[in-house]
Amino acid sequence: MSAVKSTLPEDARKVTGEALQGALVDLIDLALVAKQVHWNVVGPRFRSVHLQLDEVVTTARKHSDVVAERASAIGVAPDGRASTVASASAIGKVPDGWIQDSDVVSTMVKSLSAVIERMRERIGVTDEPDPVSQDILIALTADLEKHAWMFQAESV
Amino acid sequence: MSAVKSTLPEDARKVTGEALQGALVDLIDLALVAKQVHWNVVGPRFRSVHLQLDEVVTTARKHSDVVAERASAIGVAPDGRASTVASASAIGKVPDGWIQDSDVVSTMVKSLSAVIERMRERIGVTDEPDPVSQDILIALTADLEKHAWMFQAESV
Amino acid sequence: MSAVKSTLPEDARKVTGEALQGALVDLIDLALVAKQVHWNVVGPRFRSVHLQLDEVVTTARKHSDVVAERASAIGVAPDGRASTVASASAIGKVPDGWIQDSDVVSTMVKSLSAVIERMRERIGVTDEPDPVSQDILIALTADLEKHAWMFQAESV
Amino acid sequence: MSAVKSTLPEDARKVTGEALQGALVDLIDLALVAKQVHWNVVGPRFRSVHLQLDEVVTTARKHSDVVAERASAIGVAPDGRASTVASASAIGKVPDGWIQDSDVVSTMVKSLSAVIERMRERIGVTDEPDPVSQDILIALTADLEKHAWMFQAESV
Amino acid sequence: MSAVKSTLPEDARKVTGEALQGALVDLIDLALVAKQVHWNVVGPRFRSVHLQLDEVVTTARKHSDVVAERASAIGVAPDGRASTVASASAIGKVPDGWIQDSDVVSTMVKSLSAVIERMRERIGVTDEPDPVSQDILIALTADLEKHAWMFQAESV
Amino acid sequence: MSAVKSTLPEDARKVTGEALQGALVDLIDLALVAKQVHWNVVGPRFRSVHLQLDEVVTTARKHSDVVAERASAIGVAPDGRASTVASASAIGKVPDGWIQDSDVVSTMVKSLSAVIERMRERIGVTDEPDPVSQDILIALTADLEKHAWMFQAESV
Amino acid sequence: MSAVKSTLPEDARKVTGEALQGALVDLIDLALVAKQVHWNVVGPRFRSVHLQLDEVVTTARKHSDVVAERASAIGVAPDGRASTVASASAIGKVPDGWIQDSDVVSTMVKSLSAVIERMRERIGVTDEPDPVSQDILIALTADLEKHAWMFQAESV
Amino acid sequence: MSAVKSTLPEDARKVTGEALQGALVDLIDLALVAKQVHWNVVGPRFRSVHLQLDEVVTTARKHSDVVAERASAIGVAPDGRASTVASASAIGKVPDGWIQDSDVVSTMVKSLSAVIERMRERIGVTDEPDPVSQDILIALTADLEKHAWMFQAESV
Amino acid sequence: MSAVKSTLPEDARKVTGEALQGALVDLIDLALVAKQVHWNVVGPRFRSVHLQLDEVVTTARKHSDVVAERASAIGVAPDGRASTVASASAIGKVPDGWIQDSDVVSTMVKSLSAVIERMRERIGVTDEPDPVSQDILIALTADLEKHAWMFQAESV
Amino acid sequence: MSAVKSTLPEDARKVTGEALQGALVDLIDLALVAKQVHWNVVGPRFRSVHLQLDEVVTTARKHSDVVAERASAIGVAPDGRASTVASASAIGKVPDGWIQDSDVVSTMVKSLSAVIERMRERIGVTDEPDPVSQDILIALTADLEKHAWMFQAESV
Amino acid sequence: MSAVKSTLPEDARKVTGEALQGALVDLIDLALVAKQVHWNVVGPRFRSVHLQLDEVVTTARKHSDVVAERASAIGVAPDGRASTVASASAIGKVPDGWIQDSDVVSTMVKSLSAVIERMRERIGVTDEPDPVSQDILIALTADLEKHAWMFQAESV
Amino acid sequence: MSAVKSTLPEDARKVTGEALQGALVDLIDLALVAKQVHWNVVGPRFRSVHLQLDEVVTTARKHSDVVAERASAIGVAPDGRASTVASASAIGKVPDGWIQDSDVVSTMVKSLSAVIERMRERIGVTDEPDPVSQDILIALTADLEKHAWMFQAESV
Repeated sequence: MSAVKSTLPEDARKVTGEALQGALVDLIDLALVAKQVHWNVVGPRFRSVHLQLDEVVTTARKHSDVVAERASAIGVAPDGRASTVASASAIGKVPDGWIQDSDVVSTMVKSLSAVIERMRERIGVTDEPDPVSQDILIALTADLEKHAWMFQAESV
Repeated sequence: MSAVKSTLPEDARKVTGEALQGALVDLIDLALVAKQVHWNVVGPRFRSVHLQLDEVVTTARKHSDVVAERASAIGVAPDGRASTVASASAIGKVPDGWIQDSDVVSTMVKSLSAVIERMRERIGVTDEPDPVSQDILIALTADLEKHAWMFQAESV
Repeated sequence: MSAVKSTLPEDARKVTGEALQGALVDLIDLALVAKQVHWNVVGPRFRSVHLQLDEVVTTARKHSDVVAERASAIGVAPDGRASTVASASAIGKVPDGWIQDSDVVSTMVKSLSAVIERMRERIGVTDEPDPVSQDILIALTADLEKHAWMFQAESV
Repeated sequence: MSAVKSTLPEDARKVTGEALQGALVDLIDLALVAKQVHWNVVGPRFRSVHLQLDEVVTTARKHSDVVAERASAIGVAPDGRASTVASASAIGKVPDGWIQDSDVVSTMVKSLSAVIERMRERIGVTDEPDPVSQDILIALTADLEKHAWMFQAESV
Repeated sequence: MSAVKSTLPEDARKVTGEALQGALVDLIDLALVAKQVHWNVVGPRFRSVHLQLDEVVTTARKHSDVVAERASAIGVAPDGRASTVASASAIGKVPDGWIQDSDVVSTMVKSLSAVIERMRERIGVTDEPDPVSQDILIALTADLEKHAWMFQAESV
Repeated sequence: MSAVKSTLPEDARKVTGEALQGALVDLIDLALVAKQVHWNVVGPRFRSVHLQLDEVVTTARKHSDVVAERASAIGVAPDGRASTVASASAIGKVPDGWIQDSDVVSTMVKSLSAVIERMRERIGVTDEPDPVSQDILIALTADLEKHAWMFQAESV
Repeated sequence: MSAVKSTLPEDARKVTGEALQGALVDLIDLALVAKQVHWNVVGPRFRSVHLQLDEVVTTARKHSDVVAERASAIGVAPDGRASTVASASAIGKVPDGWIQDSDVVSTMVKSLSAVIERMRERIGVTDEPDPVSQDILIALTADLEKHAWMFQAESV
Repeated sequence: MSAVKSTLPEDARKVTGEALQGALVDLIDLALVAKQVHWNVVGPRFRSVHLQLDEVVTTARKHSDVVAERASAIGVAPDGRASTVASASAIGKVPDGWIQDSDVVSTMVKSLSAVIERMRERIGVTDEPDPVSQDILIALTADLEKHAWMFQAESV
Repeated sequence: MSAVKSTLPEDARKVTGEALQGALVDLIDLALVAKQVHWNVVGPRFRSVHLQLDEVVTTARKHSDVVAERASAIGVAPDGRASTVASASAIGKVPDGWIQDSDVVSTMVKSLSAVIERMRERIGVTDEPDPVSQDILIALTADLEKHAWMFQAESV
Repeated sequence: MSAVKSTLPEDARKVTGEALQGALVDLIDLALVAKQVHWNVVGPRFRSVHLQLDEVVTTARKHSDVVAERASAIGVAPDGRASTVASASAIGKVPDGWIQDSDVVSTMVKSLSAVIERMRERIGVTDEPDPVSQDILIALTADLEKHAWMFQAESV
Repeated sequence: MSAVKSTLPEDARKVTGEALQGALVDLIDLALVAKQVHWNVVGPRFRSVHLQLDEVVTTARKHSDVVAERASAIGVAPDGRASTVASASAIGKVPDGWIQDSDVVSTMVKSLSAVIERMRERIGVTDEPDPVSQDILIALTADLEKHAWMFQAESV
Repeated sequence: MSAVKSTLPEDARKVTGEALQGALVDLIDLALVAKQVHWNVVGPRFRSVHLQLDEVVTTARKHSDVVAERASAIGVAPDGRASTVASASAIGKVPDGWIQDSDVVSTMVKSLSAVIERMRERIGVTDEPDPVSQDILIALTADLEKHAWMFQAESV
């Protein structure tokens, strides 16, 4: 039995809990990946991309905290451990080592796109069971799609 | 050949690079573990421990960034990806699910102790090859040992 | 006739107005109850609970203002007078005098739960008539459920 | 027996406690009444009066907290519940619904005047038993009389 | 073909893009109109109305930026040029020259009402195709309806 | 007859008023054009140019407000309506749709140059009639020429 | 002989010093007069006018300090004593006692107008001898004429 | 009859009103005198004394506003005009022109001493009629005596 | 003879000086004792008590400075040296070494109670000779009694 | 040919460019000289002079940046290299080693005087060719003359 | 046995603990001594020295807290009680009563010198056993030597 | 004999003094060089490089002040005059005139590298004689190497 009693009926709690847990893993990995390329980027656009990536980190960290605490609030224990993130993230493993600025941009377009696609599904499945969680997912998707636009604009 | 030319001779660069890479992994995992129990803690001391853990996260995140950028600065590409963290961290895998406040305290004492022990070794091996990196490791160890004292004091 | 012309058709205005008026009364009382136990709490957890309650007050006051001004904005005169609050609140009368910290925690779990239950109903009934007001109710319910989780976590 | 031991002899504690309890109720109601008309005011002076009322709310809330914690500090459990406020306040019940700006001004002149009159008496009776509590009552009366002057000046 | 790839299917992109483009034009014009009367208002209520109008400008500018960047984020190039605004805005041309404070108030009631009516329709048509954009339209409508209430209250 | 009595003789008022009205229109359009390309820019320099444009917007908005209120202060009713801007601005109509970063740079060089040329003339004609207004035009021209230098430097 | 050696030739120093001394006296009196009516204003517009007057005070105090220190900087000892202000100010003695809000507005229009007229003359006479002091006089006249416009706009 | 109704009986109002009016004049003159010597001081201690004097100005201005608004609040119209200050201040006329730093110190010791002596009397006479006004006079005397100590310490 | 001339007659100066000197010693020791247990506390409530103690330190340091400078201001040289504090403080010597959280709470209740008792006497003896110093003692006693209440509440 | 196209005709550009280049060198050297004596000053006035010098540094650095960027803005490449400063500055070489406080004051009076004299000439020659650059020179001269007054006042 | 387990071997812990305990006592006394003369200084340099001493207090308090918590962190209970400070400080007892500014300067030179000498020894002995504590001692010695330089410079 | 007595023996003082004096000259020149190219850079990366250079300036200025005051603190008079910098800096003379962004990047890589090499030597020679100065050199080298990495990363 959960330590925290949900305000949602069991079915709704289960569906919403899975959506939030999935979102949590994706957002933690997004922050780790953005930091990884933030440190390893090279090329003429280094400074611009380096700074831009830290804004992705800020966005991902802020929302991962909101999403995890929302899971707790509906009685679902969130799991954000490294091994869970490594195995369940929407983002495939990025290469290590120095990475050219243009490759960073395409890596971020691909990573953000993978995460956004899953977030769109989560917005869909939580509409009925929990509009409160859905609202949180909508707000973070707006932020992710803004980042995605910017990296796309840079690859034109 | 590294994209960034080191100010250190090759031997010094190698030893220092390994120390920094090890520190990076431990600090990222410390932040993830502290967040994990920050979200899952239950018990009468919930609020106090919940807030204390976020201060550990702040410490760990700040220093992980410094350590990773120091690695880049000496010409060593840092690796802070989820899978690297999951496999190389000094901290053993923590259990998932709700966790009692007193268990959180002992988990943190153990986790911090494991990280500190390794940091002390890194301070030792970097003394000769790079006093600049050593100074960074000394400063972060001071912060970690302060956190370790506080959690120990709470378990008396 | 109302001094302020509603942007909503009359039916929608009536349903939404009642939801907002109910929310207003519950939020004002939540602030008053949280302050009452903020001043009267005793026990080893005094400081932690005392501070936590002021965060509930801040939440409740902020949203009560938003909700009341939203009522005005749709042409419904809000009523937040003491006597109205005393007679219509979702929260039963709490006892006066000093109150033990653990009793404060259970009082808050119960009070928040009663308010949240009604807010969930208000989210339901406003979906059709006024998505703008519904969005406000969703946002405040997220905050209330976060507080409710924290007090529950403390009673484990 | 009180949970908190008073620094005052029993007689002094009783007189001072009553003065503080009375002040608490009046200040909470002043905040509720000012918010009520803040939301319902209409007329050409709407914006000016609307903003002015929030300054009354800030004053009343700040001092109600000081007064309640002062009661606790001398070992008297304060009572600021909605029903207590509804039945014991110096301010008579204000009408609900939209209210013309000039009526708001005269309502505030009357409400402040009723509260100030009682505060003046409390300053008198606490002089001997507790100059520390008296000093708090003097300071809040200065603020209330400043607000009273401003609303009077507006009704000339 | 758009430089930025939409996360929305083509139909959804088109409907949402039109709603956002319409909102952009209305918000830019609202800011220009509010500034115009902010500079030209005369009458005893000059200062109060002058300040209130700058809050409308702040609201309109903030949301016009959000709406335009949201259009870009879904792959629709926004158009906020002066000539586009002049020809497509919901607000009819306001007269030039000094304008009496009471006329400013009725101008703003009318202008806000025209914009809000169109925003309500945009909330309706975006519900299915893009709940993320809809959420942005809902939030800005809440702000516009708050301004509309205040100007109405001043004309009673 | 003007609602606001000028401190200037009629001739001086007329010349100065025309200079300020012209400056107002140019500055409003500069802000609109800069925002337009801020939203539509694409290319590798996206982020850098996107941020730089917002600094132009801030400059243009700040000075347009100063210039309009200066017109009012000398008894000339300023006109900053969309249609007036669309027809009287120094800046030719910019194309809509996505725009490459290098094209943005040359658009801004050209737009700023057109505005600066007119501002230089206005500095000349206001020297005698109103040194106070001239000082305002001098200060804003300094800011515009700084922006112009930066965009030129980027096109080398 | 002056304690501070002027960077100006004696003639220029004398003319400029008189202009600055005159400006000092007018600005100090403007601050005193604005405070006087700030405290004594009554009437429905009390709050708006009361706040507006404090902005005049802030303007007058800021510039009086700049003007006095400019006099010192060119080797002229400034005189801002009460008796000097009382006898040499451009503003005639204002009546004491409560003053109706509309009378405050006309008092301020008249007072500002008298000060501005003299400032315009000072701008004229300092052009040749000291463009540095002239620039200070130009800047403060801009601020005074802005205040004058606002009070005029309120009396329409 | 006064525009603002006093909360005090007529006798108390008269005595307190005179005390406040006297305090007002002394504080305004103290600010003018401190500014006068702030601008004219010369000597090796110039910078230190120049800065110290501005702290006296800040103190005097802050309290003069409190004292004047307190007079209004008890129904007494305050008089802070230049001519009133010039004729009724406790501080004798200070000489004009450059003034040596040590003379500034003794001027301030004498000026503060004269004002403090009168303030002590005002504290005495307001004790019975109005403890609220007395509390204001006590607080400002504490500040003045602190300044007086510092100037005395500098003349040892 | 004192370097600073008192505004008080000799008798009043002596009585008040002793009260302030006693208060100074007690407040310095309170700060030292609170820091001592702030560093040495252990037990489950470590963090909460550790933070609470720093608020006592802040209170004690702030008031010790005010009290010492007040002594100087009335011409009495304050003595806050370690040896004076060690021999004259109201607080008995606290034990060294680690100290359990519950023992910290009772130590603080006892220490605060001893200091408050003496402060109450000082408020009594300074009423006649110097209401300005008394007001300072009243204000600090209010703060100390608030801290005392909180530690008492924690020991229930 | 210049990389940046000037808004000025060639003659005006040349004259203005030389004035700005000269101002740049003088301001950079002023900052270096002020820092030099800031570090080496000794004597009883050490602290006061040490702090005052840093304000000169702040002024000189701020204006040197404005002046250099103004040169760039009119198409003249500024030269602020150490060797250029060493050979072209208005300020003669100051001695190295510890320097008595009174000598610092006279050094600064002399240095500022030399720089101001040249700035006055630059204000003269730029009046016709570029009022925008002249305005910048006027503003910085005002600041320099304020510093010059203060050091002179200290040497009386 | 210590409540907090040290990360250092016993020998290292003992040596380091003694160094930190010694530093703690010296820093607390330095703060007390600096405050003592801050309150009692007289003479023409009063203000400058008075302010300078508070910067020493800030430095000493900040580092005493760091040093004490570092002791706790290595498992050594710090002792900062008044009697310990009175008997073990490096600084001899300073005289009470008013103290001339030049005597304050020499007192501070002597006090800082005594503390610095001991700190230099502590830096030496902690090098081997604990580089983390040594780093803390190095940082605080840098600050103390900066203060020592400044007081020395003032006594030339 | 030095005006400031060193805490170091003569040999240590000499070695450390030379290291600090060398560091001072290099850091001042680094700031001048970075500003020089900050003003003269042209090319597509203008804005990014322009901003990055100001961060180098901030770093260099901050550390040059610390290093110079450290020299003073050990009794060595620092020399930071333009001519000293021009003749003794580690950085060769950079060319004047407009400079392409890629050339700026390589200029900075070379300049930073030259300074860092010397700083590394200074860290070596100060280890024994003065660990306090060494710590300062270590900290600034960390910052310089971070800047060096970033410019290198941009030249890949």
